[in-house]
Amino acid sequence: MIDVQSRRDERGIEIQKVGLKDVNLPFQIRMRDGGFQHVHGNVVVSVTLPHHFKGTHLSRFMELLMSWSEKPISWKEIRQILAELCSHLEVSAAEISLKFRYFLPVPAPVSGIVGYLDYLGEFRGVFRQPSGHFHFQLGAEIPVLSLCPCSKEISAYGAHNQRAAIRTLVHCSYPGKILWLEELIELLRIQGSCPIYPVLKREDEKYVTEAAYQNPKFVEDILRDSVLALRSEPRIRSFQVEVESYESIHNHSAFASHVEEAAD
Amino acid sequence: MIDVQSRRDERGIEIQKVGLKDVNLPFQIRMRDGGFQHVHGNVVVSVTLPHHFKGTHLSRFMELLMSWSEKPISWKEIRQILAELCSHLEVSAAEISLKFRYFLPVPAPVSGIVGYLDYLGEFRGVFRQPSGHFHFQLGAEIPVLSLCPCSKEISAYGAHNQRAAIRTLVHCSYPGKILWLEELIELLRIQGSCPIYPVLKREDEKYVTEAAYQNPKFVEDILRDSVLALRSEPRIRSFQVEVESYESIHNHSAFASHVEEAAD
Amino acid sequence: MIDVQSRRDERGIEIQKVGLKDVNLPFQIRMRDGGFQHVHGNVVVSVTLPHHFKGTHLSRFMELLMSWSEKPISWKEIRQILAELCSHLEVSAAEISLKFRYFLPVPAPVSGIVGYLDYLGEFRGVFRQPSGHFHFQLGAEIPVLSLCPCSKEISAYGAHNQRAAIRTLVHCSYPGKILWLEELIELLRIQGSCPIYPVLKREDEKYVTEAAYQNPKFVEDILRDSVLALRSEPRIRSFQVEVESYESIHNHSAFASHVEEAAD
Amino acid sequence: MIDVQSRRDERGIEIQKVGLKDVNLPFQIRMRDGGFQHVHGNVVVSVTLPHHFKGTHLSRFMELLMSWSEKPISWKEIRQILAELCSHLEVSAAEISLKFRYFLPVPAPVSGIVGYLDYLGEFRGVFRQPSGHFHFQLGAEIPVLSLCPCSKEISAYGAHNQRAAIRTLVHCSYPGKILWLEELIELLRIQGSCPIYPVLKREDEKYVTEAAYQNPKFVEDILRDSVLALRSEPRIRSFQVEVESYESIHNHSAFASHVEEAAD
Repeated sequence: MIDVQSRRDERGIEIQKVGLKDVNLPFQIRMRDGGFQHVHGNVVVSVTLPHHFKGTHLSRFMELLMSWSEKPISWKEIRQILAELCSHLEVSAAEISLKFRYFLPVPAPVSGIVGYLDYLGEFRGVFRQPSGHFHFQLGAEIPVLSLCPCSKEISAYGAHNQRAAIRTLVHCSYPGKILWLEELIELLRIQGSCPIYPVLKREDEKYVTEAAYQNPKFVEDILRDSVLALRSEPRIRSFQVEVESYESIHNHSAFASHVEEAAD
Repeated sequence: MIDVQSRRDERGIEIQKVGLKDVNLPFQIRMRDGGFQHVHGNVVVSVTLPHHFKGTHLSRFMELLMSWSEKPISWKEIRQILAELCSHLEVSAAEISLKFRYFLPVPAPVSGIVGYLDYLGEFRGVFRQPSGHFHFQLGAEIPVLSLCPCSKEISAYGAHNQRAAIRTLVHCSYPGKILWLEELIELLRIQGSCPIYPVLKREDEKYVTEAAYQNPKFVEDILRDSVLALRSEPRIRSFQVEVESYESIHNHSAFASHVEEAAD
Repeated sequence: MIDVQSRRDERGIEIQKVGLKDVNLPFQIRMRDGGFQHVHGNVVVSVTLPHHFKGTHLSRFMELLMSWSEKPISWKEIRQILAELCSHLEVSAAEISLKFRYFLPVPAPVSGIVGYLDYLGEFRGVFRQPSGHFHFQLGAEIPVLSLCPCSKEISAYGAHNQRAAIRTLVHCSYPGKILWLEELIELLRIQGSCPIYPVLKREDEKYVTEAAYQNPKFVEDILRDSVLALRSEPRIRSFQVEVESYESIHNHSAFASHVEEAAD
Repeated sequence: MIDVQSRRDERGIEIQKVGLKDVNLPFQIRMRDGGFQHVHGNVVVSVTLPHHFKGTHLSRFMELLMSWSEKPISWKEIRQILAELCSHLEVSAAEISLKFRYFLPVPAPVSGIVGYLDYLGEFRGVFRQPSGHFHFQLGAEIPVLSLCPCSKEISAYGAHNQRAAIRTLVHCSYPGKILWLEELIELLRIQGSCPIYPVLKREDEKYVTEAAYQNPKFVEDILRDSVLALRSEPRIRSFQVEVESYESIHNHSAFASHVEEAAD
């Protein structure tokens, strides 16, 4: 049968990314404790397309993703998926983003009752041939509580507070030691006025309310403390981080963001 | 040219709704003060399809909507749009939902500085021929602040609070006096622990913080007070109302909802 | 510690639904083949609140959901979850909606290469005490391809086509035999102009293109054929079904919908 | 009243962006024909925060945005808004993104019947002091139809087709001549297999079906033709462009994207 994709293209444009978007597939994510977690993954995957080819063979992307759907994956496997893509499609660069909701058991602060809290996780990788260069980024979105220092200071009682989200994407050296998603979450979940919990009994709710009131933070404060935390982790070479606070007294959000590149 | 839609269908099924969804068009909404507001409308519109026709003529829906895109509309015009649809498409019933973001000027509680606050509005109508029966519903989503009574009571200081939304759909008699969207919003925007504002200077923020702390409400309380407010308005014959509170101490929402049908 | 929720309320309003919304938790769904599938569930859960109580105890909802997060569930377990809710919260009615993305292996029509296709599934239940009455609904959203009969008929070649979605919610008798989600999907995935596939090689793409061209269907046709299919299944007592076609030649959708109530 | 935001911060971190997100406000967009269009704008706005200040004064952002809500704006006014922000907040850089749905009249290709088609538009600007440097980007998302060349070539009849979106963000020199959003849309709306229309009578539908069949394009083709079109416009210095095709035969999208930086 005719292979239209392999026909010669005369426009002289090498396309930087061609691939699939919004692919939903089950995946297994390797966990720090040696096990793995079943997740619903949402994937964007692409390769470069040399200027002389009319198109790429998109069915091969799905076949390859399917073959990885039931094996535990982490950054090493992301590299392998991309190496296979480069080889199967005979291209010099491949790229992937795998996003998923990730559940971790979180005990309530006083009662100790455990529930699952949901975070957003992301594995993002770029692989180049023939150099074999691999660039890996780990992403997370972490819900926290923010309590306004200005509102507390100027009011006779109370202070407005709300849910906020810390979003980050960090770059770790390869080869070298990579952070676990669990570690990245632990680093940042304590940077708000107070962490957030799935189950809270009355004694826990008292604790959270008072802890947040004693630790008021603007989005600017949460951002700066997150920057300091990310800088303190030697395995992180560069990062971007954003804090968004869904203001309870307004119908919009306050936010702060910062990017820190590696020195080299 | 052949009219495939008008061919005879033998499956014997009268379809209850056939039409368009997710139509984006500019509209003008009549305001209480006699003026009108330009909005970006999102429309679902449909008619019944008699069992003997294979299909309906969808291009006529767009032509009709276009003809109404630049005239101020309110419930009377919704009735007229539906009557025209019934007549143009020779059907016995037509239905529409027009949703839009609606902006009203809201002064800050102390400084009086005015900003626009955005609400969601909806006009929903059903029209039947030959009876001429018209059923109209007015919808709104209104952001408020909720402050937890339990958190306040058990804590030495502070209380968790967050943005919440009151969503309602009310049915007014026709013929009869219809509520303005402005009136529905005014009725409900004061049912939370405190209203929400677009612009707040420090003196306003102090006011809002203290007012909310002095008026703690569960979603159950906001719902019950909203039910009482809606019952108190003689122009409303039946309603549904939901309160959703985006809990600041959790990664999920608390909600309460209630439906009250007309007695007849 | 003071139990604010249990305080007496004087407004005289029994609230129909009080509970949690947008709860994300991992669940296991029982499959027809005897196994189960790990899913990411999104839950809305509620109970009635008697008029004399100020509030309900929301932490108990999360504790109960957590206890079901790692046991395979189907309609029987949905009934049990709701019975436990009624008993733990001492209320007369409880309600749940559990939505999840569900993956099923689908072989390509010619090459037979298997990939996972993602559908949306929903378990919805209402349980009442002391009657023990249980109302269960099964929901699904199924992607299909729609090819326009009018476009085919009037054009010298080609016909516009696009992705469409069939959404349904069916009510099965209880006690009695309940449909598996797999069965509901199989019943409806063949009602478009052609099914949709995760992996298609060239020979498969030729098959799908030609099959769709030979089987043109308006949304009205897909809806009517879906109604006939749902009526033909004796385990389904009543249903609602909607077909939405994301028109390729417009920036809006065409849709048709129908509700059929049980005769009794 | 105490000004908590102006307190000294000792963490030594200058924050790159602090501001508001998801602000909904009405705006007026200047049109090419000399008039203006009322839109519902969604805004992200931020400034830098010097390391020695604890926080910024977010209420000033809303006051400034309000003052611009009822004056027609284009790139010149975006520059002025940012200059005012820098001056009011005494910072060295300010940034804004204003997104809105933009409606343009589009006549059907044969009947000439005119309807409004909705596009997404974006104004994005960065302003720096004391240099007065202003970087402006214009964004658009444009729906088109894509028809698969492979499907057409290998099939005896028909070809799968679907809605696709071309998304771009272009950078124009300042000072210099800026593109109108209308021009950017006109440049790209013809790069698919066929444009998309709001209203199509039968003779128009025949035209669109046949035109698309005679002009099959992969996402790669639409991307390359869009790149050539953007390169051909001398007012555009650099750009990014993505094409996403909502595949009718799959439950995922195909996409291609490309970034071209200015030479200097």
